[in-house]
Amino acid sequence: MVDADAIRVTIGTYCERYTDDRDGWLALFADGATVEDPVGSDLHVGKDAIGAFWDMSHGLADRVTLTPSGYVTVVGNEAAFAMDARMEMGDSVSGMAIIDVMTFDDDARITGQRAFWSFDDLKPVEP
Amino acid sequence: MVDADAIRVTIGTYCERYTDDRDGWLALFADGATVEDPVGSDLHVGKDAIGAFWDMSHGLADRVTLTPSGYVTVVGNEAAFAMDARMEMGDSVSGMAIIDVMTFDDDARITGQRAFWSFDDLKPVEP
Repeated sequence: MVDADAIRVTIGTYCERYTDDRDGWLALFADGATVEDPVGSDLHVGKDAIGAFWDMSHGLADRVTLTPSGYVTVVGNEAAFAMDARMEMGDSVSGMAIIDVMTFDDDARITGQRAFWSFDDLKPVEP
Repeated sequence: MVDADAIRVTIGTYCERYTDDRDGWLALFADGATVEDPVGSDLHVGKDAIGAFWDMSHGLADRVTLTPSGYVTVVGNEAAFAMDARMEMGDSVSGMAIIDVMTFDDDARITGQRAFWSFDDLKPVEP
């Protein structure tokens, strides 16, 4: 059984590296990991596909930051956590809530990710 | 496709009724719904089993309240939301964060629930 604190470190690092550390972010995933982001969209399987997803999603905004909320719940090898996403495009800044649900291997690497968010929830926020 | 706002109403009502409205709470579930609370525990299938789960969980404390956080994310017929649980036992009050992941039918009734929480996260809180 993986340690809950190790999973919490992976989650914090996941948010931190998402902005501009592609390689460091990808290193948090196990080989063959799956990403469904948002829920209901096509599954990205394996690090190459997840890297391509990173490229695509970072092409949608000049800068994206993920700020973890206090809500992080770890149960065995699974976890869910809420965060605030902030997207900068030129002078425009938007934000929305995201809740990710993840599974982990015994080294606290991500084996599966499902991200709950919708463009419908995107709202302008203070720059 | 069910309306996201209808799902948000179900979620708010779910938290509200959990404290002391057993029948009203059960009415939010579709026939044959499943509850895995917490994640990794035995699945409760159908309203009778979910009602028995309600009885069991309410036997663990004098009073439980679920306060929704601002984090509610709805995507199609699925949703995730974070809340604060508060458990009163005699003069002792404890709390923890919970994140629920749910699926819904087209009438916004719950067809599946998975609750992310752990007794390890239970902490004393101000009465």
